[in-house]
Amino acid sequence: MIKKTKKLFSKKPSKIKKKIGASPGTITYTGEKETSELFIEVYDYNEETVKIRELDRVEEGLEIKTTDTVTWINVNGLRHVNAIEKLGDHFELHPLLLEDIVNVGQRPKLDEYENCMFAVFKMLYYNTEDVLKVEQVSMVLGDNYVLTFQEADGDVFEHIRNRIKEDKGRIRKQGADYLLFCLMDAVVDNYFLIMETLGEKIEDLEEALIDNPNDILVHQIQRLKRESLNIRRSIFPLREVVGRLEKSDNHFITENTQTYYRDLYDHTIQVIETIETYRDMLWGLMDMYMSSVSNKMNNIMKVLTIIATIFIPLTFIVGVYGMNFENMPELHYKNGYYTVWGIMILIFIGMIFYFKRKKWL
Amino acid sequence: MIKKTKKLFSKKPSKIKKKIGASPGTITYTGEKETSELFIEVYDYNEETVKIRELDRVEEGLEIKTTDTVTWINVNGLRHVNAIEKLGDHFELHPLLLEDIVNVGQRPKLDEYENCMFAVFKMLYYNTEDVLKVEQVSMVLGDNYVLTFQEADGDVFEHIRNRIKEDKGRIRKQGADYLLFCLMDAVVDNYFLIMETLGEKIEDLEEALIDNPNDILVHQIQRLKRESLNIRRSIFPLREVVGRLEKSDNHFITENTQTYYRDLYDHTIQVIETIETYRDMLWGLMDMYMSSVSNKMNNIMKVLTIIATIFIPLTFIVGVYGMNFENMPELHYKNGYYTVWGIMILIFIGMIFYFKRKKWL
Amino acid sequence: MIKKTKKLFSKKPSKIKKKIGASPGTITYTGEKETSELFIEVYDYNEETVKIRELDRVEEGLEIKTTDTVTWINVNGLRHVNAIEKLGDHFELHPLLLEDIVNVGQRPKLDEYENCMFAVFKMLYYNTEDVLKVEQVSMVLGDNYVLTFQEADGDVFEHIRNRIKEDKGRIRKQGADYLLFCLMDAVVDNYFLIMETLGEKIEDLEEALIDNPNDILVHQIQRLKRESLNIRRSIFPLREVVGRLEKSDNHFITENTQTYYRDLYDHTIQVIETIETYRDMLWGLMDMYMSSVSNKMNNIMKVLTIIATIFIPLTFIVGVYGMNFENMPELHYKNGYYTVWGIMILIFIGMIFYFKRKKWL
Amino acid sequence: MIKKTKKLFSKKPSKIKKKIGASPGTITYTGEKETSELFIEVYDYNEETVKIRELDRVEEGLEIKTTDTVTWINVNGLRHVNAIEKLGDHFELHPLLLEDIVNVGQRPKLDEYENCMFAVFKMLYYNTEDVLKVEQVSMVLGDNYVLTFQEADGDVFEHIRNRIKEDKGRIRKQGADYLLFCLMDAVVDNYFLIMETLGEKIEDLEEALIDNPNDILVHQIQRLKRESLNIRRSIFPLREVVGRLEKSDNHFITENTQTYYRDLYDHTIQVIETIETYRDMLWGLMDMYMSSVSNKMNNIMKVLTIIATIFIPLTFIVGVYGMNFENMPELHYKNGYYTVWGIMILIFIGMIFYFKRKKWL
Amino acid sequence: MIKKTKKLFSKKPSKIKKKIGASPGTITYTGEKETSELFIEVYDYNEETVKIRELDRVEEGLEIKTTDTVTWINVNGLRHVNAIEKLGDHFELHPLLLEDIVNVGQRPKLDEYENCMFAVFKMLYYNTEDVLKVEQVSMVLGDNYVLTFQEADGDVFEHIRNRIKEDKGRIRKQGADYLLFCLMDAVVDNYFLIMETLGEKIEDLEEALIDNPNDILVHQIQRLKRESLNIRRSIFPLREVVGRLEKSDNHFITENTQTYYRDLYDHTIQVIETIETYRDMLWGLMDMYMSSVSNKMNNIMKVLTIIATIFIPLTFIVGVYGMNFENMPELHYKNGYYTVWGIMILIFIGMIFYFKRKKWL
Repeated sequence: MIKKTKKLFSKKPSKIKKKIGASPGTITYTGEKETSELFIEVYDYNEETVKIRELDRVEEGLEIKTTDTVTWINVNGLRHVNAIEKLGDHFELHPLLLEDIVNVGQRPKLDEYENCMFAVFKMLYYNTEDVLKVEQVSMVLGDNYVLTFQEADGDVFEHIRNRIKEDKGRIRKQGADYLLFCLMDAVVDNYFLIMETLGEKIEDLEEALIDNPNDILVHQIQRLKRESLNIRRSIFPLREVVGRLEKSDNHFITENTQTYYRDLYDHTIQVIETIETYRDMLWGLMDMYMSSVSNKMNNIMKVLTIIATIFIPLTFIVGVYGMNFENMPELHYKNGYYTVWGIMILIFIGMIFYFKRKKWL
Repeated sequence: MIKKTKKLFSKKPSKIKKKIGASPGTITYTGEKETSELFIEVYDYNEETVKIRELDRVEEGLEIKTTDTVTWINVNGLRHVNAIEKLGDHFELHPLLLEDIVNVGQRPKLDEYENCMFAVFKMLYYNTEDVLKVEQVSMVLGDNYVLTFQEADGDVFEHIRNRIKEDKGRIRKQGADYLLFCLMDAVVDNYFLIMETLGEKIEDLEEALIDNPNDILVHQIQRLKRESLNIRRSIFPLREVVGRLEKSDNHFITENTQTYYRDLYDHTIQVIETIETYRDMLWGLMDMYMSSVSNKMNNIMKVLTIIATIFIPLTFIVGVYGMNFENMPELHYKNGYYTVWGIMILIFIGMIFYFKRKKWL
Repeated sequence: MIKKTKKLFSKKPSKIKKKIGASPGTITYTGEKETSELFIEVYDYNEETVKIRELDRVEEGLEIKTTDTVTWINVNGLRHVNAIEKLGDHFELHPLLLEDIVNVGQRPKLDEYENCMFAVFKMLYYNTEDVLKVEQVSMVLGDNYVLTFQEADGDVFEHIRNRIKEDKGRIRKQGADYLLFCLMDAVVDNYFLIMETLGEKIEDLEEALIDNPNDILVHQIQRLKRESLNIRRSIFPLREVVGRLEKSDNHFITENTQTYYRDLYDHTIQVIETIETYRDMLWGLMDMYMSSVSNKMNNIMKVLTIIATIFIPLTFIVGVYGMNFENMPELHYKNGYYTVWGIMILIFIGMIFYFKRKKWL
Repeated sequence: MIKKTKKLFSKKPSKIKKKIGASPGTITYTGEKETSELFIEVYDYNEETVKIRELDRVEEGLEIKTTDTVTWINVNGLRHVNAIEKLGDHFELHPLLLEDIVNVGQRPKLDEYENCMFAVFKMLYYNTEDVLKVEQVSMVLGDNYVLTFQEADGDVFEHIRNRIKEDKGRIRKQGADYLLFCLMDAVVDNYFLIMETLGEKIEDLEEALIDNPNDILVHQIQRLKRESLNIRRSIFPLREVVGRLEKSDNHFITENTQTYYRDLYDHTIQVIETIETYRDMLWGLMDMYMSSVSNKMNNIMKVLTIIATIFIPLTFIVGVYGMNFENMPELHYKNGYYTVWGIMILIFIGMIFYFKRKKWL
Repeated sequence: MIKKTKKLFSKKPSKIKKKIGASPGTITYTGEKETSELFIEVYDYNEETVKIRELDRVEEGLEIKTTDTVTWINVNGLRHVNAIEKLGDHFELHPLLLEDIVNVGQRPKLDEYENCMFAVFKMLYYNTEDVLKVEQVSMVLGDNYVLTFQEADGDVFEHIRNRIKEDKGRIRKQGADYLLFCLMDAVVDNYFLIMETLGEKIEDLEEALIDNPNDILVHQIQRLKRESLNIRRSIFPLREVVGRLEKSDNHFITENTQTYYRDLYDHTIQVIETIETYRDMLWGLMDMYMSSVSNKMNNIMKVLTIIATIFIPLTFIVGVYGMNFENMPELHYKNGYYTVWGIMILIFIGMIFYFKRKKWL
């Protein structure tokens, strides 16, 4: 379960790649998914009907917006900046907003523009090598449309697609603001899964620590500390983001939906508290490790001290009678040898008693 | 009193179970009490009369609300979501409110709805295995009624029932807001008992630590730290909840009752301060442990050093006269043997003095 | 000066005794002074006259309040709840206020009622066993009267009594609000004495730590930490209490007196800063202890290593020539014995040089 | 990569040089670049034209300000206080503002004067000896002009010059407030580079720590801690500075540009979070070091204990049969010698088993 | 440079001397300078003229205030409370203000009275024994006069006197509020000198720590920590004091002068940040000490282990052939002795290789 990794920093703690020196508003993708294909889904629905289209080129989808149904355009593949720019022009998005979409080093945030609201969230998942990955999801909420932008395929929105298709729950009866809430809720719900995985890792680590505390576990603890730090950085700003959504007074979010945002806010706080608890636990593990190392050292020292303290004086005694002086009367006593053995056994027993009393044995 | 437990995490630090992917507002019970029976008590009283009924099905109680007396409906058994939904419909409770009632991973909170106030509290108790358990109590305050929802049987409201039945104190003379205060006060009063138990545990641990500091106690300290962390998480948000109740300006809470909420607020702060003190103490215990381990190590080392330092040189001396050189004049001296003994005794005494002066003996 | 105490927790960290389950507003004494006698002093004064009476029963004092002089009623003995209730009725005090007076686990606070202001302060003193004791003083300020309630005899108000009797300072020329200030000022002034005592204890502890760092001192440090924690808990809330008095805009406190409260506020901050400094110092002492323990260990190890490193190789050499091989030419050399001594002395001197260079000697 | 440096404080932690006793408003350069030449660049541009001049004396540039184009005057060489004073007089800058420009110990700040805004930023760079250097850049924004003041040649504005010259991006179409934003953005962008360098240093340090934890690495950790502290001090106040620019309501900054400042604010927060993460990591490295030192000690002790525990008893046994008693029957047994060897081999094997079971081998 | 001091607390951490039990407003000097002489300087100036007088009795100066020039009265010698009271009466100062002047345990603060503003600052200096001393300076700003009160002779205002005398800078052209700023600025400027001294001490300490880490240095670190704590306590409240002066809207401070107070505020923040950095550094030094002690211990253990591990087995071998069994065939081999030597040399070389591989050599 737990193995030594040489490089804990394989993932940079924060994506600090940025096009230095570029003019502000320049749209450049800064992420890692540099081979992802462009893939666009369009969901257009109201209470009665739902149209679903999947596109490879952005031009095909641009005429859609004229209807008064709710439209959700989900764009995968941020490296296709041209397509994103075209979409941006169509929806009259601010250049800085577009820059933020493709610059995946953003922290979670909420920006209000005149014609839309813009939110950045982080999707967390463990990849096949059990390394925590962070993927940026940008969401734009305008009048009766929602745009979402992801770095690559694969997301946490599958059951939302199902609910739209199969008209489950309230989703088809509500506006775009409720869709945005559902998307955010899906991202936050996914954090609970991440928390569970992290919690299990901590459990495993603790068991390993009780069984056999060693150096590698310290690295594991540091690793998990850093992981929890990364998660915290991705989640903590949501507190403010969702809090502002709950209290926002612009026309994009109806009062009815705000109740749902209050619920989302509670969930966010819950996740943040859980991650704080985990961080506390990891500190506790470190303490346990240090104290168990001290303890081990104590035990080693005890063994050494007991053996040395018993045998060094005895060795001295036998040394005495190994001396070659001509005149050593004891050597000629008939029971000299047995007497010495007797004395040594007495000393031995005395020592054992002493150590018993000191609770070293 | 204190025994080694392999698994400290047997209880998840936070209930993170949640129905991932369910539509918001879906009412699903997420707790552990999956076999608890539905059990509903109805107290309907005013200054003159009191009617008490116990029901097994929610339909029987629904006509009650038409009177202008104060009604308290206490529902045990959150897994019976249908019954709770019916009750919710009857009192026109918001779906999210109902979701929060059965989702027992909520943190303590206060939500204001148009037709009611909704509060979530945590009842704490130690189960038969001395493990801290957290049970969620939801309270709904409407016009002249209070609804309470508990996961299972057994609560801290017994003396409130008595006061209603026997018309003790002010309770029958006051409205539903005073009843809500009494219920909350009972929950908070119970925290003082938990504090006392925790305080005794810390005392026991400290005594054990002074008697015989060992590795298991570190686990115990970590365990209590985590326990106090859990308690803190259950209690800390009350500060804000009760603070808001005290200052709330809606019509559910009369000005007269607010004075009582101020009192409750003081108690809450007191509990929080106590738990903080306990956390400080536990840190202090860890320090004491570490310093007593260092001390023990020092004592072990002292014994080893004293024995080794005395006997190693003596062993060398006897070794010298164990050599087999032909030409060793000392060996032929008449008192050679006794002289060597004399020298060794002098060295021995000198060493003892040295250690005395160093305060090692 | 410093002795080992087995039980550091003899005093509960916070008085958590409370009548669980009692109806709110029930007046029950929760303190330790369960044998104290009721003793009531009444000071009634204005600029010209002063009347002093001492009563054993509360009824005797009740007619007094009709005059327009300033009245100070000081009640000792909180277990006499009936007397306190009678007094409360007479002055129309709120039941919760009376409950707070006798429930001595209150934290310092200031409550404003319609007909009076109610403040809870803590008197600190060291008892004859040098244990810090906390006694609750409740003060009620109404129109031209002040009530004070203490658990038992003995307080810090002696010089105020003198000033009233002998008409020293401004006290007889001012109203009840100034009297309240004087009483509070006396309590806070007393904290400076406690601070001095605590400071001296820390000094003693530090000297002991430099002389002979040992395990008991760690307990002492923890003890003082806890003591300072207790003091802090008693004093810290005053910051807010006195701050609110300074800025209060109700009619009980005249603008003229508020200047004095500002002064009191400064003193409170000073005490709090001092206690924080002490806490910092105690942390520093712990650091000093840990580093001096490490140092001691180093010195022990040095002695062991020097002795062992010198004599173990020498013992090996003498062991070589203690072997009984038939064919060992060195044994037959005329100066073999002296040569071996020479070699051993050279090794000895070499070692000494080595340790000198390593600064171990 | 990593070498021992004797003096970690070679750079003072904060520039505390100040002309003590000088009258406030006295303009004295307090930095280190005491030989830098005066060098002034003037960029004067609007959408159509751009004029660039380079001056050695400030008088040559003073007539420029009459045009309604945007003017950027960049002054290098703060020790030429006369030139700066002349420029200050020309633009009617407040004496305290001029004092702040040349007093390079300022912390980043934003001051609003009647006729201009004044911002102090810090440029960070690693010099050729890999020591972090801090250079102060002061920026003055007035009506359609921006003045910048640097200690010496070399800055992070090169690509801004290019964009002005070659009319890339929006810069020529926008006013002086946008130019100010571009300059600030360039400074903040540069922080990302510094972060990357620092991140790499931490990585190197960690690898070195895993390979061979030693004393020098602790100094390196302290060094990087201090470096990150210095960076933090230079960057942290920007949070407030840029936040105020974003929300400022004076006429110097148009609403359109404020959107850009919001973007800059996000970047600033990102840098601050990264630096906090690095500080956390450095704490983690220290923990790893301490635990790996403890571990090494444990291993050393194990080797010692194993060897001593095995051979000390054996040496005792051979000592026994080295005694010279006349009457020692075992010595005359035919297989006495082989029996002793047998016993000793058994003891040896027993010990090995014992250590295996203790997991010391 | 660095020597062991037995008593770190020679200076009480905070001046807690206070006249317990005295009536509030009683003017009693609480400082140490109990033999200082009364010495009063009066500067009376406007743009054209300046009059300077030095007095020994306060009565001589009292008629001065009638002019409309700016008057600065500097009083040295706080123990002369009568003189201070007379001055207070003349300027109609509040009794509490006078009490604060002579009670030198005040924390820095700013009080606004109806007819004046009252500020308390702390002058810091190192005395001849290199102990940090704190002297209280009280400043009163009224309409066109400033009063300053110092405990004893010697201050940081010398260059202000010169500027007034010689009409340097703006001082003679400005009002009393500017004079107050100059005095405060002088106090704060002096802090930079203290910072520099403290910085050098930390540097010295670090060098000593790298050369030869020992117990005394820990005391030095604690000492400097406490010193920096003391400095912090004297400086930290200035943040608020100067901040309030900057934003104050009363008539004592003109808007023009407020710009200067903003500058002073920046300096104050700078000093506070520097002291925080120093505190961080001192923590770092403690870490360095602990890790270097661990390291030293490791080295000592290594030497012991190497020597013991090499020679204990060899001593066993020579012991074997020192046994006196009759039947030990090896003893009679011709090359037995040389073979044993060969084996021992092989073991020796093997051990050396082993330690080399473990990097202990």
